[in-house]
Amino acid sequence: MSTSTSPQPPSTAPALGVWLIGARGSVATTVVAGAAAVAAGLHPATGMVTETPPFADCSLAPVGSLVFGGHDTNSCPLPKRAEHLAAGGVLPYGLPAAVGAELAAADAEIRPGGPLPGDARSDEELIGAFAADITDFVRRRGLARAVVVNVASTEPLPGPDSERLPVSSLYAAAALRAGHPYVNFTPSTGMHHPALADESATSGITWAGRDGKTGQTLLRSVLAPMFLQRALDVRAWSGANLLGGGDGAALADPAAAAAKNAGKERVLADVLGAAPQGEVHIDDVPALGDWKTAWDHIAFDGFLGSRMVLQTIWQGCDSALAAPLVLDLARLVARAGEMGLTGPRPELGFYFKDPDGESSSLGEQFTQLLAFTEQLRATR
Amino acid sequence: MSTSTSPQPPSTAPALGVWLIGARGSVATTVVAGAAAVAAGLHPATGMVTETPPFADCSLAPVGSLVFGGHDTNSCPLPKRAEHLAAGGVLPYGLPAAVGAELAAADAEIRPGGPLPGDARSDEELIGAFAADITDFVRRRGLARAVVVNVASTEPLPGPDSERLPVSSLYAAAALRAGHPYVNFTPSTGMHHPALADESATSGITWAGRDGKTGQTLLRSVLAPMFLQRALDVRAWSGANLLGGGDGAALADPAAAAAKNAGKERVLADVLGAAPQGEVHIDDVPALGDWKTAWDHIAFDGFLGSRMVLQTIWQGCDSALAAPLVLDLARLVARAGEMGLTGPRPELGFYFKDPDGESSSLGEQFTQLLAFTEQLRATR
Amino acid sequence: MSTSTSPQPPSTAPALGVWLIGARGSVATTVVAGAAAVAAGLHPATGMVTETPPFADCSLAPVGSLVFGGHDTNSCPLPKRAEHLAAGGVLPYGLPAAVGAELAAADAEIRPGGPLPGDARSDEELIGAFAADITDFVRRRGLARAVVVNVASTEPLPGPDSERLPVSSLYAAAALRAGHPYVNFTPSTGMHHPALADESATSGITWAGRDGKTGQTLLRSVLAPMFLQRALDVRAWSGANLLGGGDGAALADPAAAAAKNAGKERVLADVLGAAPQGEVHIDDVPALGDWKTAWDHIAFDGFLGSRMVLQTIWQGCDSALAAPLVLDLARLVARAGEMGLTGPRPELGFYFKDPDGESSSLGEQFTQLLAFTEQLRATR
Amino acid sequence: MSTSTSPQPPSTAPALGVWLIGARGSVATTVVAGAAAVAAGLHPATGMVTETPPFADCSLAPVGSLVFGGHDTNSCPLPKRAEHLAAGGVLPYGLPAAVGAELAAADAEIRPGGPLPGDARSDEELIGAFAADITDFVRRRGLARAVVVNVASTEPLPGPDSERLPVSSLYAAAALRAGHPYVNFTPSTGMHHPALADESATSGITWAGRDGKTGQTLLRSVLAPMFLQRALDVRAWSGANLLGGGDGAALADPAAAAAKNAGKERVLADVLGAAPQGEVHIDDVPALGDWKTAWDHIAFDGFLGSRMVLQTIWQGCDSALAAPLVLDLARLVARAGEMGLTGPRPELGFYFKDPDGESSSLGEQFTQLLAFTEQLRATR
Repeated sequence: MSTSTSPQPPSTAPALGVWLIGARGSVATTVVAGAAAVAAGLHPATGMVTETPPFADCSLAPVGSLVFGGHDTNSCPLPKRAEHLAAGGVLPYGLPAAVGAELAAADAEIRPGGPLPGDARSDEELIGAFAADITDFVRRRGLARAVVVNVASTEPLPGPDSERLPVSSLYAAAALRAGHPYVNFTPSTGMHHPALADESATSGITWAGRDGKTGQTLLRSVLAPMFLQRALDVRAWSGANLLGGGDGAALADPAAAAAKNAGKERVLADVLGAAPQGEVHIDDVPALGDWKTAWDHIAFDGFLGSRMVLQTIWQGCDSALAAPLVLDLARLVARAGEMGLTGPRPELGFYFKDPDGESSSLGEQFTQLLAFTEQLRATR
Repeated sequence: MSTSTSPQPPSTAPALGVWLIGARGSVATTVVAGAAAVAAGLHPATGMVTETPPFADCSLAPVGSLVFGGHDTNSCPLPKRAEHLAAGGVLPYGLPAAVGAELAAADAEIRPGGPLPGDARSDEELIGAFAADITDFVRRRGLARAVVVNVASTEPLPGPDSERLPVSSLYAAAALRAGHPYVNFTPSTGMHHPALADESATSGITWAGRDGKTGQTLLRSVLAPMFLQRALDVRAWSGANLLGGGDGAALADPAAAAAKNAGKERVLADVLGAAPQGEVHIDDVPALGDWKTAWDHIAFDGFLGSRMVLQTIWQGCDSALAAPLVLDLARLVARAGEMGLTGPRPELGFYFKDPDGESSSLGEQFTQLLAFTEQLRATR
Repeated sequence: MSTSTSPQPPSTAPALGVWLIGARGSVATTVVAGAAAVAAGLHPATGMVTETPPFADCSLAPVGSLVFGGHDTNSCPLPKRAEHLAAGGVLPYGLPAAVGAELAAADAEIRPGGPLPGDARSDEELIGAFAADITDFVRRRGLARAVVVNVASTEPLPGPDSERLPVSSLYAAAALRAGHPYVNFTPSTGMHHPALADESATSGITWAGRDGKTGQTLLRSVLAPMFLQRALDVRAWSGANLLGGGDGAALADPAAAAAKNAGKERVLADVLGAAPQGEVHIDDVPALGDWKTAWDHIAFDGFLGSRMVLQTIWQGCDSALAAPLVLDLARLVARAGEMGLTGPRPELGFYFKDPDGESSSLGEQFTQLLAFTEQLRATR
Repeated sequence: MSTSTSPQPPSTAPALGVWLIGARGSVATTVVAGAAAVAAGLHPATGMVTETPPFADCSLAPVGSLVFGGHDTNSCPLPKRAEHLAAGGVLPYGLPAAVGAELAAADAEIRPGGPLPGDARSDEELIGAFAADITDFVRRRGLARAVVVNVASTEPLPGPDSERLPVSSLYAAAALRAGHPYVNFTPSTGMHHPALADESATSGITWAGRDGKTGQTLLRSVLAPMFLQRALDVRAWSGANLLGGGDGAALADPAAAAAKNAGKERVLADVLGAAPQGEVHIDDVPALGDWKTAWDHIAFDGFLGSRMVLQTIWQGCDSALAAPLVLDLARLVARAGEMGLTGPRPELGFYFKDPDGESSSLGEQFTQLLAFTEQLRATR
């Protein structure tokens, strides 16, 4: 590991605003608390790829220069959320107290999301209100630039003939309206809605997504290429996911689970050439809290049709897996915007289940990411 | 899969001799039976990387052109060994009968290995006798070229001050003496003995090794890079291997297990930069027959020190995993020899736990292998 | 193990007819081939509880005295089915040939099941035809007694207002009509249909069921009591089942899966007092053939709320698990009938997921079974 | 669960002293903190079998009446140890503060253990000093009765001809000398030393042991009977244990691991009739802290020799598993002593890997324990 726990020197870089959709969720709370902990040298930057040597001279915003705000429909204050996460073992014992000031500061910048039940505002009104919140944040805090990141709960796949935009797309439209780069860390629609196609194409902003690759799919993106490279015949790939927390409850909705699974299955079909037999289940198991368990069972044929099996069990904390990637993406996409890049960023497929551009093996995606760092350094 | 079961046209290519050290073992039996089955179109070439499109125009010896012989101290005929493997589910039901002629032909070319207890011959005499067997095989069968492949049971690590060469090195020396390329698919010493250094350097032959990467280490070579690329902190990597068959019995000898483990642990240290905590155990469990099970437990830290775990369970048939790789290596190393290449072949690290040259991720090794195919095509 | 492979002496006991519903399925084929193999001393009676010492003097029909017949809608002959199972590793290599005569004899006693699509017969006509087939079998073969055993594929849960009896209940009614004891090894309705209540109550026959406990539920019936006895708090019990073969395809029908799951979940609720969180999934994975894999994930709280996890992975061959229990049940229920017992047999809960009488721990069920042997011995 | 979190009424029962050997270890710290938490109604008594209904009228010492003291060579105060355990997720967040007074009170009763390196005292002197410490504790605190419980790290198996008593036996002798019942929760020798045979036989005290059954062996004691009852043929039972904490380090000593394994393997041999193939490994993995993972792989044959596999993965916190059983045992053995029972207590085999009396299935041991409660109630 090349990460260290020495505190970063006080940042003189112009501050980068990170506007989180779902700003009081587990992921967002971990992002805010974690950035403060890393900046203060309380913890190494484990899991942040952008803190490894290849990213050293890429002019990314220092972790200590990030300023957080966002939207949420939940009103539980961030310091309290952080205490809750620490009690559940997601945040380290004592961290909420140690970064209480930073949590409170971010909490003060959270504005009500929407629409809540009974809200009579039109889509256009909501987009305008959200964009105004973001613009106000940037202005008041004197930020050089900002990036909007969706870390809200997965929303159901929209019906084919809905007259309203999905909520995630309202926020994506607000990012366009306010003129800031956008990251969709969830499987929700976001910028992928046809109604946003024209505006996004001409907006001059850049965006990246979607659906952060944190666990089972991360594994699949290294295992599937192994079978392919060894000419082994994958017959069936089955999986079960158990997760509690907000994500588990959201995914208990079959429509939301369908949205999630679409990304999960894409990597197998893309890498192996065709989807093998097998299904993926997502179960809500509240007893697991923020921890998730993913079991995969891969039945493959070897030489002369011999039947073999690989099974994997991944036990991780979703928020802790997601947060460093969110920080990576905020910094990378903000930097891409600063460089004048526009449109989707296929170079960031390393981070996503359902990337812009081709899905491929994690190794190839990592090579693409390293190539991107050269571009970042070149236009320093 | 790009492999097919259509029988290959009768080969007009000059025949390639494959001389197997351990020619009556499970791997060798599967190699001989499998090559016959693939050549006859009875089974697809699953697991043979050299039968995938990138290797199409590399002038490799057709599977149907391979002629087998070898050394063994065991006298059980190959057709009987094959029946035994079919009863144990290693070879498909009915295959031994279907390829009985090819098994009998190979069996007729197996010469007694050694030294058996009481054998008074010196190392030099043994090397000479083994080399004469190989030369005789090539001459009698009118072979254009031949390759020697070690698929014998793992031998114990040699003591520091042994006056005799390890048996595997006697056979490697015989390959040098007879002037044929050599492949060491086992962790045994083979060509790596200091006493062979001068002769191998000036021999003009090429060789590759060692210790075929068929299961747990194959997995490790894709998982370790994943943790590294994601900046996750691997704290401990523990493993248990259960295997029966001849290999299990051989590895019940702690010295042989030590030889095996050295290669297994190399990949982690090489990829991760330092060896994590944890041990690897190899247990002889005769009840498992030719099947092996490998459990790996990887404890890693994520963001803010959150503790996570990945576990993998690999259940495979060692002979079926090894045989297609042995066929690949025989063809590739024979072709390299034909092209005049000499010395070790680091381009073939994809196949080995303890490769010549740097150990690295499977993805990088696959890229090196593909680059090698271009070299093969160029010098067609 | 107290079982042995010595051939049983030629049976002088009066023959027992075993009429199998689903007589050409994998389970039935394994039953017929296995009984012949055990009787001939080719294999020990592994998995047959009735061949262990406590059952020695219970006057059960000797394995060699069993005469098989049955109904099936499939026309593939048993010897061919057996070859197919041997190729898939379910039956031992060479067994189909060794017991070919017994397979052919049983095949000659299989009558067409029904109703097939287009069959215009009423329920009453079908019951009459099935009963006549059974009676004819008993008469022609000069059998002292017979037992009817349902080993057909799981049928969907019947709709609430169906006018027709489920097929499994037609066969149960035929057993009543013909006057023979009945065993339901499947989760299908069988004797549990309200329309059969009166007739079964007055029939004077005995029956047992339902849903043979062969794998995941067997495990649950020993693990759930462990948690209870240790006062550990089971929070969630989740499971995934992967199975191919005919059972996998049948259970791909959600209605059939629902029937199967009802039994699976009963054991947890019965033993733990309340059903924990978690779901059970059953996936059809044709690539697995007759083998099934069941993964269970049990999240439990220990002292002071510490979160712990037990996971189990069961990999078994369903037919090989079921067949010896089917032989046990045929012998036990036939003996009960001979003794004049009538109605359901709660003493046999050891064998079933959804037993007559209380569901309980496997240990208690085994104690009940041993107590039943004393009853069998007493009325010798 | 029948446990509740309502605080227990202030105890008017005469206090029971619990003298812990290894009083500053993880298990002892969890015992002291947990008893305080349960007595105060902060947590339910999960894992304490003696708090379930069958034990209601057995006149056991109330949890709130327990007074703790003990010996340890470590000087780290209990409140600090508790903070450390909370940071590692073993104790709940906030608990050390909530029960700080109780931890400090117990810490004040801890006396130096021994012998430390350089200690010139003879065995007899050490026994006398230890006994005096216990007697002094009982006198000063005005305790009605006391029990001595060994929860220290596992010591190596003693050499055959050592002139000194193992340390665990010094403490057992001190319990005899001071006249208090004794529990050995570890695999160390304790009361099982031949030199203590005469004194223990005539002492009039009762004792129980040894080696608390908390994880892998607990599982084995329910799974092995399942295979036996189903007449399945267990071919091999292999296991790997990964554990950090003090226990992991102690067991990295092969002699200590041998002591631990002896108990683990006893259950299989006792239940199955003969030990199957397979080994058990215990690895020290400091990164796991107080958590342990045990993987078991059970290869068994079913009908007609079909090969099947059950694997289990147990992930638990050793201290949290042990502590409630330690509280159970302290209460039960103190009560037995009060009733005048003497010698070993085979009725408590439920708790031990290597019990006094026959080892058997957990179900049978639970039945014995319930029978013992009737004896306790009868002599109220």
